[in-house]
Amino acid sequence: MAKKKTRKLSNLGEFNWLRERLPRLYWPASLHSQLCIGPGDDAGVLRLTSGRVLVATTDAMVEGVHFERGWFSWERLGEKVLAVNLSDLAAMGDVKPLAALITAALPGDTPVDYVDKFYKGLESCAQRWKIGLLGGDTVGSKRGWFVSVTAFGEANPKNLIKRSGARLGDYIVTTGPLGLAAAGLEVLRSDSSKKTWVRPLVRAFSQPQPRFDAGRLLGHQHLATSLIDSSDGLAASVRLIAEASSVGAEIRLADIPMPDSLMRWARRRGRDPWDYALSGGEDYELIATVAPAHWNSVRRLIPGVARIGEILQRKEGLWVVLRKVRFPLTGYGFSHFGI
Amino acid sequence: MAKKKTRKLSNLGEFNWLRERLPRLYWPASLHSQLCIGPGDDAGVLRLTSGRVLVATTDAMVEGVHFERGWFSWERLGEKVLAVNLSDLAAMGDVKPLAALITAALPGDTPVDYVDKFYKGLESCAQRWKIGLLGGDTVGSKRGWFVSVTAFGEANPKNLIKRSGARLGDYIVTTGPLGLAAAGLEVLRSDSSKKTWVRPLVRAFSQPQPRFDAGRLLGHQHLATSLIDSSDGLAASVRLIAEASSVGAEIRLADIPMPDSLMRWARRRGRDPWDYALSGGEDYELIATVAPAHWNSVRRLIPGVARIGEILQRKEGLWVVLRKVRFPLTGYGFSHFGI
Repeated sequence: MAKKKTRKLSNLGEFNWLRERLPRLYWPASLHSQLCIGPGDDAGVLRLTSGRVLVATTDAMVEGVHFERGWFSWERLGEKVLAVNLSDLAAMGDVKPLAALITAALPGDTPVDYVDKFYKGLESCAQRWKIGLLGGDTVGSKRGWFVSVTAFGEANPKNLIKRSGARLGDYIVTTGPLGLAAAGLEVLRSDSSKKTWVRPLVRAFSQPQPRFDAGRLLGHQHLATSLIDSSDGLAASVRLIAEASSVGAEIRLADIPMPDSLMRWARRRGRDPWDYALSGGEDYELIATVAPAHWNSVRRLIPGVARIGEILQRKEGLWVVLRKVRFPLTGYGFSHFGI
Repeated sequence: MAKKKTRKLSNLGEFNWLRERLPRLYWPASLHSQLCIGPGDDAGVLRLTSGRVLVATTDAMVEGVHFERGWFSWERLGEKVLAVNLSDLAAMGDVKPLAALITAALPGDTPVDYVDKFYKGLESCAQRWKIGLLGGDTVGSKRGWFVSVTAFGEANPKNLIKRSGARLGDYIVTTGPLGLAAAGLEVLRSDSSKKTWVRPLVRAFSQPQPRFDAGRLLGHQHLATSLIDSSDGLAASVRLIAEASSVGAEIRLADIPMPDSLMRWARRRGRDPWDYALSGGEDYELIATVAPAHWNSVRRLIPGVARIGEILQRKEGLWVVLRKVRFPLTGYGFSHFGI
């Protein structure tokens, strides 16, 4: 008899497992009327009173997987783990962030000073976005740091934007440049991090900023038909929007904003610069789809926004275009499980 | 010059670090009017609309620290990590649990089947308490499982009970027996887990049940002056209530409910059976203080509740009494950082 091969997380990748499992998570019939958006979008949304909903999301960072000691200070780690959670709230539209809870698993030999700095970083990010730290739990770990945040905010449900609203002919837009963080990660892994010109790349990786400004405008004025953050790379963002909305899409690589530092780093590494944007991940811009009639408003209201593609019919599939040549868009980009 | 000694988490223990830091966590002035109970109680409480508050808590379990493979199934792990979070909601009084978010950091070689079982366990606990799973994040880990849950519910703030309301002369009560889970942990670490008579001990450790029934009664009818769960052991529970309420306390060991299985296990190990209750931890009963005038109601409404001590004046301190001899109550009990 043939031995059945055990399916492992690393064979599947994060997206496949999450895609299969998350939307099927349990929700009781008694709370059906309160569930506005279930697992599978950037954040879950629960109705609490008429007209106001709770928007909640969770995300973690693991030493040796998402960061290494020495890449940045413990303060920056605190700032970043909170900021990436807030980005998921911003990616839901016009959300007022309220509070966060933090779990940290730390080895017993961790100097208290490090933990204090980590919490100071959390507090500095909380202060920046005027949210409160509502609770925390600090437990032991056998090896390395594991930090997890749950962030929540409140919203008028009419001003939320899901991943699933993209329509044929919509423009695909990004609120800023993409690929910097992935290049910044390479910089940190190399010996180049002390050079001045690479600093914007390192900063993009170590100090991401949630785009509440853009999310608020797009949500409050109903300017976007779908919205997601770019945390898993542009390819994943566009694929997730296309799948949720049952549409196809085309990304024009030449239209993605590419700062000089990123072009220079890509040349130096002999890598295709678009690769960083498509599959790099860890950028925290917003990717939206916008009806052509709204594009002028969006361009006027959000400095730095760029139109980088179009929504196609579902049967046309997913494409990237470079110098008039079309390539099929494959994969999701980033995985945490070592594939 | 003398070298300054680095303070490490393992030197301080969890409680000291948390006690120092949590109550000082950042909360913005703009949200002051919304913060009902900040970090430091079993859960944080945030006002959302007049008359309704959000109650939120977070807690984690780490492989090699809180559990080992083989102690119980992955389903039980899912059930337990959600149940211990729900216990923190129950320990706030009359709280309606609503939803939870889950973060899991797992090694890439984890069979998908294990992960699926873990989520099935989460769902079976969610179903038991009619709460929804609002979101999740599954990331990579270098070594071992790390699972973290944030649970939240809603409440009428008038029906919440803090740790800080205990008054001189109040009775200290427990909603059930204490020390079983700590003995159950010893059973799992030994080779005795297949014997029938130890099963209640193992079950107490691996299948804790949040006491929503008792919390609801105590909160809704305003029968308790303070409330906490027994997750860190009775000594810690009473100390935390006493400190928050600025009172002293006396625990009568002989009045703590002690099932036969626990007495038998303690004899076998040559340990003091009260030790399991005082410093064991991982039980999820509720410890409350009750005005003498309410004791009869409490006894009638909550089967199995036991009166195990009294609140004293602060200057009298903290005591345990056994056979008319008083011993000072020292320490907090359980620590995750290996001390």
